[in-house]
Amino acid sequence: MATDTAVPAGAPRYVQPDVDVPALTALLDGRFAEIRHLVRTNLAAYASVLDEADELGMDDFRERVRDIVVEMAATGQTGMGFPEEYGGGGDIGASIAAFETLAFGDLSVLVKVGVQFGLFGGAILQLGTKRHHDAYLQDLVTGQLMGCFAMTETGHGSNVQALGTVATYDVATQEFVISTHGDESRKDYIGNAAKHAELAVVFAQLEVGPESDRASEGVHAFVVPIRKAGKVLDGVRIEDDGRKMGLNGVDNGRIWFDEVRVPRDALLNRFADVTPAGVYESSIDNPNRRFFTMLGTLVQGRVCVGGAGINASKVALTIATKYAVRRRQFEAASDTEEQLLLDYGMHQRRLLPLIARTYALHFAQDVVRTQLHDVFSATPDAALEATRRELEGRAAGTKALGTWHATRTIQECREACGGAGYLAVNRFAALKADTDVFTTFEGDNHVLLQLVAKGLLTDYASEFEDLDQLGMVRFVTNLAVGTVIERTSAHKLLERVKDLLPGGDEWDQEAGLLDSEYQLAMLRFREEHMLSGVARRLKRGMDQKLNPGVVFSDVQDHVIGAANAHVERLVLEAFVEKVRDLPADVPEGNRVALGLLCDLFALSTIEADRAWFMEHGRLTVQRSKSISREVNGLCRKLRPIAVDLVDAWGVPVEMLRAPDLIG
Amino acid sequence: MATDTAVPAGAPRYVQPDVDVPALTALLDGRFAEIRHLVRTNLAAYASVLDEADELGMDDFRERVRDIVVEMAATGQTGMGFPEEYGGGGDIGASIAAFETLAFGDLSVLVKVGVQFGLFGGAILQLGTKRHHDAYLQDLVTGQLMGCFAMTETGHGSNVQALGTVATYDVATQEFVISTHGDESRKDYIGNAAKHAELAVVFAQLEVGPESDRASEGVHAFVVPIRKAGKVLDGVRIEDDGRKMGLNGVDNGRIWFDEVRVPRDALLNRFADVTPAGVYESSIDNPNRRFFTMLGTLVQGRVCVGGAGINASKVALTIATKYAVRRRQFEAASDTEEQLLLDYGMHQRRLLPLIARTYALHFAQDVVRTQLHDVFSATPDAALEATRRELEGRAAGTKALGTWHATRTIQECREACGGAGYLAVNRFAALKADTDVFTTFEGDNHVLLQLVAKGLLTDYASEFEDLDQLGMVRFVTNLAVGTVIERTSAHKLLERVKDLLPGGDEWDQEAGLLDSEYQLAMLRFREEHMLSGVARRLKRGMDQKLNPGVVFSDVQDHVIGAANAHVERLVLEAFVEKVRDLPADVPEGNRVALGLLCDLFALSTIEADRAWFMEHGRLTVQRSKSISREVNGLCRKLRPIAVDLVDAWGVPVEMLRAPDLIG
Repeated sequence: MATDTAVPAGAPRYVQPDVDVPALTALLDGRFAEIRHLVRTNLAAYASVLDEADELGMDDFRERVRDIVVEMAATGQTGMGFPEEYGGGGDIGASIAAFETLAFGDLSVLVKVGVQFGLFGGAILQLGTKRHHDAYLQDLVTGQLMGCFAMTETGHGSNVQALGTVATYDVATQEFVISTHGDESRKDYIGNAAKHAELAVVFAQLEVGPESDRASEGVHAFVVPIRKAGKVLDGVRIEDDGRKMGLNGVDNGRIWFDEVRVPRDALLNRFADVTPAGVYESSIDNPNRRFFTMLGTLVQGRVCVGGAGINASKVALTIATKYAVRRRQFEAASDTEEQLLLDYGMHQRRLLPLIARTYALHFAQDVVRTQLHDVFSATPDAALEATRRELEGRAAGTKALGTWHATRTIQECREACGGAGYLAVNRFAALKADTDVFTTFEGDNHVLLQLVAKGLLTDYASEFEDLDQLGMVRFVTNLAVGTVIERTSAHKLLERVKDLLPGGDEWDQEAGLLDSEYQLAMLRFREEHMLSGVARRLKRGMDQKLNPGVVFSDVQDHVIGAANAHVERLVLEAFVEKVRDLPADVPEGNRVALGLLCDLFALSTIEADRAWFMEHGRLTVQRSKSISREVNGLCRKLRPIAVDLVDAWGVPVEMLRAPDLIG
Repeated sequence: MATDTAVPAGAPRYVQPDVDVPALTALLDGRFAEIRHLVRTNLAAYASVLDEADELGMDDFRERVRDIVVEMAATGQTGMGFPEEYGGGGDIGASIAAFETLAFGDLSVLVKVGVQFGLFGGAILQLGTKRHHDAYLQDLVTGQLMGCFAMTETGHGSNVQALGTVATYDVATQEFVISTHGDESRKDYIGNAAKHAELAVVFAQLEVGPESDRASEGVHAFVVPIRKAGKVLDGVRIEDDGRKMGLNGVDNGRIWFDEVRVPRDALLNRFADVTPAGVYESSIDNPNRRFFTMLGTLVQGRVCVGGAGINASKVALTIATKYAVRRRQFEAASDTEEQLLLDYGMHQRRLLPLIARTYALHFAQDVVRTQLHDVFSATPDAALEATRRELEGRAAGTKALGTWHATRTIQECREACGGAGYLAVNRFAALKADTDVFTTFEGDNHVLLQLVAKGLLTDYASEFEDLDQLGMVRFVTNLAVGTVIERTSAHKLLERVKDLLPGGDEWDQEAGLLDSEYQLAMLRFREEHMLSGVARRLKRGMDQKLNPGVVFSDVQDHVIGAANAHVERLVLEAFVEKVRDLPADVPEGNRVALGLLCDLFALSTIEADRAWFMEHGRLTVQRSKSISREVNGLCRKLRPIAVDLVDAWGVPVEMLRAPDLIG
């Protein structure tokens, strides 16, 4: 109906695609179909946890979640990322895929898994050496040995280099003495700390040398026992963080250390060590680079959270879409029957671009996951350094966009389900409360985008990568600004863009809106232009001899904007490449559907920032309006297959709950 | 510092204003300072409810909230809107002000007050006559008689005219027989229904006449006893809605009626009655107009919810602003000290435009509240009809913008407080969960904006106001489109705009960005242009003989956009007028501060929609960019007085909670 009327007379007739849902699911699941199937089965088996989250008190729910995590571990689901000799699956990509899929279910279970196997287990695996692996991995993979990841402090979250906890080497006893100095440096919000962890991986400022001449070597990680048989050990003080907005099945807590002594081999010593005599040694000379190398091994956490945000969005969109083809409201097209919500143009506008963006982010996540798998499966190699840096930028960016997308999507879907969406018996209450912290944990999204921008501004040159934030500002503003501007100058840029789209200076006026090269060229132009703008602004501020902090503060929104533009370009590239390189056996209807989704993502992304494109001469008024019309047209075309598109994500029906919404 | 550097050489030197906080509070509180003081005192006295919301189970918390509501009622706080002869305060404006102020505290208490005194009490007062007032008002004002407002059904929320509950008049016994036909027409989400209400005001389709020739007279309201001494009465079935995302101190439930009989005088008969012999009588002939007149008397609920959303935003912004001048993160301007969050440009961008918009909405709410007070305090009069319609539009629009603002602001503030903001011990968890439903209850925001647009398209002509939605589409498209286009034609419009700003066709290029007449002219232009665009699109669709429903669906996003533009213009007008007409005794610093806030609101509003202004020839690229620069500059100017600006709202310190955030 609506679709038919959208076709102007004379236009080539549009044929609505038939979607082959199982084939589309297979394409989305990719090489991880098997592990995803296992997780879906486990989720369905433990579906009662969704009710228990409402019904049990906080203490009981925490125990229930712990039990489920241990039982799921027994199926092999949670240990995919560990070496086979310790009972793991030896497949890092599969471990991410498993984690992402778990986001269809209760998110306390997800986060508990992330804390135990990703953060705690990941730190032992990545920062430790064989002695730590032998001592802990086997038991932590089964979930018998629970641990926590004690990095964040009350006074320091994103700025890890400034942590206040201190680990002093005592040469007399060959021990490290771990101390908390004041409440600002207590560990805080630490998952597993309040109840279940027996060990903590503690990040602390390492100090070596005699008291008279003590040197600080920066932040390092130590394995510290904090609890035995449920009893907190001497010298350790733990306080429960109490109820949270969501994720109340995870026992977050605060930890203080009062001169707690651990043996010398408690230092996770892959990148640095202290000799028995108290001499500090590291294979990485530059302290900043050492710090970022250690932190870089933990990038998996960000990749996991980004993927979880994307999959949590799928749950919300599945419910809201099914509701919108069932719920009628007001007589609009007929006197006798009310109209389905999804037949309203506004409702299509609310849901379909979000579905398209979810597909786009899904394929972008595929790229990050693959890159992570490749980097961490390979033997360490200098040549990999650049890839590793690129991965860190991509992981940070995808995490930021994926988790903001979750917050926005879940809210929009809740509102699109009206008052019914407000009842706890549906998924929205828990989804919204549980995912809320995704935008700030594993790195605050704004800070992460600054990290992305830093990589871009310094062109991932490894010698500049090791700078802290203030160093970066000074570096960019004082030294390299010329290079950056050169690299991204409007002239060179236009050359590059023209190569992509032959057609002279008017390329953007002549290309078809549905030409993916046009869409990509637009996002590339925006990225490069914003980046060079940031560099120019930084330079101008420094030329005026202003305080670097003030300069940075003034330009910060441009920094964030440039990083966002960069990540959106990566996301579109991932989607376009996926659609272009579809295997031969993909059914035609699925090809058409994915093409429509890719166009809708690209054009709604350009539309959302059309003011910028007009301000920078890349959109005329007429063309800007025609993009909005095209977005509307794409929404109408996708409306009849909307349910197929959400079904293809394969959210287990038990996880939809929402009996009153989807009946 | 940042402020100083923002002043270009040669510009007139900007002097930072000193804010007189108590004087600003007095200005904001206006003539309701006394009742607001009472509510603030009561909130502080019951501050423990914020803890109890976390600590008590749902059942206990519901009882606690009921007790608090009854105790607050005893102070006179909740009864301001009822006539003095029934124990009320006889001041409708004060009753709204009291309710708004209550939004600083626990929102279950607020909503329970709204259900009992606003919805239930308001229906008895506005739809009933003296016999109902005498029977119920005295007891409900004290809270001894609890009631509920049974309008919404599972199958029908926004479309009240299509409710399924039926009330049939039985002439033999002179009773109405109330019946629920199927689960879609059960009453649902009804506050006070699950536990506390003894009476329900039930909205049902009234049927009169012999069974062979029964006439349906549309939706009417009846007083129906549902519970006595805590026991549900025969023929009534009640089911608990159970836990919700938030507001768990309110007992929402579902109600089914199985041929429940109530006497003839149970009909709330201010606008229509049934004679003992079963003849239907009404002073309003047109059934649609009768329906909208009845509903119109309940507009107070929307005004209350809008005001509550605005005040809940103040709580979140107060916490986030105080945190941002305390929390340091990263060394940016110094090697030795980390920088305060609020000294970052991005952080200023996140919080200060929201503070400005909150001020704007506060003053817009003053206008709605005053209009409501005047309309409802006057004796009914035909001349008031147009004002009443205008009030309905303004109330609907302010409710939509105020509650969306709350959702957006609370989320932004939570993220701006990082992981600490996620703990339940702070206010964000409850604020976010409790306010979430504000966007959908008392009218879904999208539906409300359609209502606003309908009023604009039909120019509030009362004869057209009585149309339902489908009727409106047909009306606008078939009959009146010429008139609307004429009224809003580009030609006439520009004439009007030029009158405001002498300066020829280039008025918008020549005016200063900080000229409030320029800012207003921009928002007026947008509104009129969008409105005529909607009318033209509707007409074109009808000229092409398309189905009206399809036409409406296609144009729906423009309808919502036009309504939003209208309401934002009203909000800016309210702010500009407030600033222009400040009393002589307002300290100079406060004048300057309010002027900066008004400019920031106006320019950030234009900036947010700058794509539209460029598309419609009202912003050049250069001017668009200079607006963004000016917004940044205004943020820097407001940064040093940000804490004063939030302190002036007078959120009681006990309501901020957040010990870890604001110390």
